[in-house]
Amino acid sequence: MTSRLRRKFSCGVELTLAIVGGKWKPVVLAHLKEQALRYGELRARIPTLSDKMLTQRLRELQDLGLIQRQKSGRGVRATYELTPRGRSLRPALAALNSWGEKMAADVGATIEPRW
Amino acid sequence: MTSRLRRKFSCGVELTLAIVGGKWKPVVLAHLKEQALRYGELRARIPTLSDKMLTQRLRELQDLGLIQRQKSGRGVRATYELTPRGRSLRPALAALNSWGEKMAADVGATIEPRW
Repeated sequence: MTSRLRRKFSCGVELTLAIVGGKWKPVVLAHLKEQALRYGELRARIPTLSDKMLTQRLRELQDLGLIQRQKSGRGVRATYELTPRGRSLRPALAALNSWGEKMAADVGATIEPRW
Repeated sequence: MTSRLRRKFSCGVELTLAIVGGKWKPVVLAHLKEQALRYGELRARIPTLSDKMLTQRLRELQDLGLIQRQKSGRGVRATYELTPRGRSLRPALAALNSWGEKMAADVGATIEPRW
């Protein structure tokens, strides 16, 4: 964790956003919420996110201790999965996901998981 | 709601962030989660946020239909409060808040509500 977090925050939400804020980190975490995925699988599920951005976000999430890269055997492609700290975010990810799903019709958006 | 939301999203979290993403909108909503507040009260509770930024975020949240400005009587200062749509975000705000509170010790942050 970085030293920029060692300061005062007005509430828990402000600190949470300082750790996992931004446009894509929570989305990557949401896709890993239920299962480990390979890089290519993540890439296919979030088509709007470029290779460069996905690679950067994965590195940041590893540095934050929220995901880990697992390589289980020779010739087996590495997968990314939530660490225990990452899993502790599941209730928040589930609540954000559920609100988005409920709002989709209201705002004319389509949620189309690609798998 | 804006036309930029009328597209495909990979999951509910991605849509939620497109609606209430950014550094400060969720923080303002979190402070209004339990009660209506006057502008000056919000300003005091989120000291890192400038007047200009707070004013902009409040306007955006009103445009999104998530908060409303209430003026109850002559000489009474207006308060901001969640609309029914804003209240539907409470479970997500509570989960984000709780995760931040749990993480504070780990990352050396202090959560210091000012009221």
